[in-house]
Amino acid sequence: MVENKFDVNRVIGHEFEPFTFSYTERDVSLYALAVGAPADVLDQDELQFVYELSSLGFKALPTFAVLYPTRMIDTILTGRLGDIEFNPMMLVHGEQVLEIKQTLPTAGVMTCRPRISRIYDKGSGMLVVTDAPCYDETGAEIAFNQSSMFIRGLGGFGGDRGPSSPVETLPDRPPDAVARQQTADNQALLYRLCGDRNPLHADPQMAAIGNFDRPILHGLCTFGFAGRAVLKHFCNNDPSRFRSIKVRFAKHVFPGETLVTEMWQEGSRVLFRTTTAERGEVVLSNASVELHH
Amino acid sequence: MVENKFDVNRVIGHEFEPFTFSYTERDVSLYALAVGAPADVLDQDELQFVYELSSLGFKALPTFAVLYPTRMIDTILTGRLGDIEFNPMMLVHGEQVLEIKQTLPTAGVMTCRPRISRIYDKGSGMLVVTDAPCYDETGAEIAFNQSSMFIRGLGGFGGDRGPSSPVETLPDRPPDAVARQQTADNQALLYRLCGDRNPLHADPQMAAIGNFDRPILHGLCTFGFAGRAVLKHFCNNDPSRFRSIKVRFAKHVFPGETLVTEMWQEGSRVLFRTTTAERGEVVLSNASVELHH
Repeated sequence: MVENKFDVNRVIGHEFEPFTFSYTERDVSLYALAVGAPADVLDQDELQFVYELSSLGFKALPTFAVLYPTRMIDTILTGRLGDIEFNPMMLVHGEQVLEIKQTLPTAGVMTCRPRISRIYDKGSGMLVVTDAPCYDETGAEIAFNQSSMFIRGLGGFGGDRGPSSPVETLPDRPPDAVARQQTADNQALLYRLCGDRNPLHADPQMAAIGNFDRPILHGLCTFGFAGRAVLKHFCNNDPSRFRSIKVRFAKHVFPGETLVTEMWQEGSRVLFRTTTAERGEVVLSNASVELHH
Repeated sequence: MVENKFDVNRVIGHEFEPFTFSYTERDVSLYALAVGAPADVLDQDELQFVYELSSLGFKALPTFAVLYPTRMIDTILTGRLGDIEFNPMMLVHGEQVLEIKQTLPTAGVMTCRPRISRIYDKGSGMLVVTDAPCYDETGAEIAFNQSSMFIRGLGGFGGDRGPSSPVETLPDRPPDAVARQQTADNQALLYRLCGDRNPLHADPQMAAIGNFDRPILHGLCTFGFAGRAVLKHFCNNDPSRFRSIKVRFAKHVFPGETLVTEMWQEGSRVLFRTTTAERGEVVLSNASVELHH
């Protein structure tokens, strides 16, 4: 099945068909619940992300914008990206960058124009980088997503290894803030209703094919929890102060685990790291949020 | 605001405009999660209600059909039913009957034709009974819902008190089965995305107007949990064996509480009672499920 030699240049620059993502207030609320908001149901601050009549005004969590290119996942689950064929259960999300260009509407129609911008040969697998700018109906760019996907077993095709991503050095002091967030046992089943229906997150048999003991949480779900932690501690839960976020998915999370996010503010950046309390594994590394001044 | 004298006969027989309820597999899955399924994410039996690729075949929980007349709630939340005006925060769900006429499709468009069938003066409040048959696109009746709603403070208008509902006598033996189901703190926030957006279930201030210390769980959410308990213990999780269900909403439930459902089989009927473990309050009484042979 694995085509170990192929012309990378025929894949780089591959443009997906543009597609639209239509959403309603209900989708915005569902996303918030799917990434654990509100932590406390009596907390008005986070209630504003799920309750459309909130006295603070109903708002989308900034990380909601990673859903805009969701339809790309359907393409990926076919096991084919341009010339590349692979087993979708062997794919893991490597890194994610999200830039918020304008306040996210709480309902709307976005058009995404993703393209494969880079392909690297990491030896043990192939890294595929996709850039997806997302536009509203007036053509204004609302958000930009960059996803790096790692396909295990598909390396060794003789491609460029690519640069090592610069590793963020965390400050040598105790974190400025620490968030402890409990995920629910059914967190992945809820998150998948936001659009990523990869069976890896629901089906024990499919998880086994991916060499996991049980279905794992979506990396982007963990990402949403961490985004909430920074939004609360450094933005007073005001999405307009949240400019961008990037993370590396260092390790999987099992639904039901507790996420511990340690955060350090350095000027307009908040560096962070997320660990599972139960296994002590770093699950998000090389991670930061850029704040607006 | 309260119109304590009015002509009941002008309200009985009031027909709502027929309306449609369109749903997708995603709505079916969301409903299952909103009523706590699967209790164990590795349990294939309940995974079939949330996972569209389930090896057992994807199915709707039978109690999903209470959502078909959801749009009626929007009418009710206007605080006006025919000639009756009231504060929607004073309304509580009294009883619910659901009959499944045919296997519920996992996606579809239903047309509901609700009408007010009875109005009773209970002294402390008014009881409004609504019958809602629900039809699929071929015109076949798929489900029938009967809701009794109690509007506190609106009694004393000189109407008929109505019959006392027959009280189910529970067998004088230990229950044949007992289910213990933990609701989540955010259970009501999730359930409301199924359609009933009454602020009573989300907003602490609105709950206070209704004289509750905090937002309460939807009666129909508790109903869904109890339906699952009977489905599991007496139908082997096979919806085709579930014929009808009726309950009285005896007391409210707070999200986060544990529901204990005691069940007794008597021929083709399962009588049950649901209690909160934390407060020892009976929350569903006069309750039963009819099974198919």
